[in-house]
Amino acid sequence: MNKQQTTPVNTAMDTTATGLPEPTLRRLPWYLAYVTTLRRENVEYVSSTRISAEVGVDASQIAKDLSFLNIKGKTRIGYEVARLESRLRDFLGFDQQHNAVIIGAGSLGSALMRDSGLLRYGLNLVAAFDIDEQIVGGEIRGIPIYHISRLGEIARDRQVNIAAVTVPVDAAQVVADTIMDVGIRAIWNFTPCRIMVRPNVVVQNTSIYSHLAVMYNRLKQ
Amino acid sequence: MNKQQTTPVNTAMDTTATGLPEPTLRRLPWYLAYVTTLRRENVEYVSSTRISAEVGVDASQIAKDLSFLNIKGKTRIGYEVARLESRLRDFLGFDQQHNAVIIGAGSLGSALMRDSGLLRYGLNLVAAFDIDEQIVGGEIRGIPIYHISRLGEIARDRQVNIAAVTVPVDAAQVVADTIMDVGIRAIWNFTPCRIMVRPNVVVQNTSIYSHLAVMYNRLKQ
Repeated sequence: MNKQQTTPVNTAMDTTATGLPEPTLRRLPWYLAYVTTLRRENVEYVSSTRISAEVGVDASQIAKDLSFLNIKGKTRIGYEVARLESRLRDFLGFDQQHNAVIIGAGSLGSALMRDSGLLRYGLNLVAAFDIDEQIVGGEIRGIPIYHISRLGEIARDRQVNIAAVTVPVDAAQVVADTIMDVGIRAIWNFTPCRIMVRPNVVVQNTSIYSHLAVMYNRLKQ
Repeated sequence: MNKQQTTPVNTAMDTTATGLPEPTLRRLPWYLAYVTTLRRENVEYVSSTRISAEVGVDASQIAKDLSFLNIKGKTRIGYEVARLESRLRDFLGFDQQHNAVIIGAGSLGSALMRDSGLLRYGLNLVAAFDIDEQIVGGEIRGIPIYHISRLGEIARDRQVNIAAVTVPVDAAQVVADTIMDVGIRAIWNFTPCRIMVRPNVVVQNTSIYSHLAVMYNRLKQ
């Protein structure tokens, strides 16, 4: 197993590939969610002050965040809602299709395969992989489940760049190593494990169970 | 609608209800995942050096984190694996049952209802709520789906402290206000919206779609 390097932990000072500060990138989806609501209500313009009141971020910070996308509001009128929405969606990558696979078609993995929201946010699940002979060969919502041994072949054929990992904790690192071996560059880690990755491999941790621990702890107050 | 205060953004200096620094709380599930693997392999003792090599956290930091739980390793032998696992599970709240509801039994909501992993991590989904007459009255994996108007009654009867929000973005804040109105103290927010909450209400954001944006951005490198 190769465990050359851990993922660097992002701090508020980090910037991302596109030179955007990471905190800005994390706020942009809040603005998008709000302007999507406005557009559905046929609102044409919105001020940073109004966005601020809704999402709880300083209006000056909002203006600064949006300036990274080369979006400027008009004095007194504000931002054009439809344009702001489409610019945000495009910038965040939700309008492109990113081919992805699920590794581990158990409870959480098959739940994700049933979530049509992923495709709306640009994630196109083309296949799932498992080792359980009971489920290999089957499919969920049209997404085929293959044996993990076929990962390399299918990742190449379908130009897969992202693998979501929803395996039991015991298997998380071994599976991550396999993913990297076949050349997939991004790992979406749903396990509560810390996955060790090689340089230039992107890891996004979405450990919903770890989030539960934080919530339980705060509830004790 | 009441929008008295935004959730405070946690920084590395924040401590949680139990006086535990938040970064420590976020690392504990990594240690738990690893020692669970070891226990299944019948390993009896583990050193902080070995945990360090697996999870990519300094051994001294690990010892410090575990000291918050009043766990100390023995010189040269290390930590007793079974005891460390059970202490971590207990401390993180995974061994208690926390009654919770799902608001929004659509694609993501029903996916979560199918994930048996939640119960293993202490989250007991007792009911789901929606406004869609097509699905109200039904059930998924034995979890009944009620009309949202019954939230207060059922939350009281079943002593529900946690509500997971999986509604469309337009409805997120209204639903959050309803949740707070009926006295539920913790909101697990799966929407990409920033939810504004009253003081003493706990919010945990698990916006899987926002995480996608971060991953897409890093992949552009």
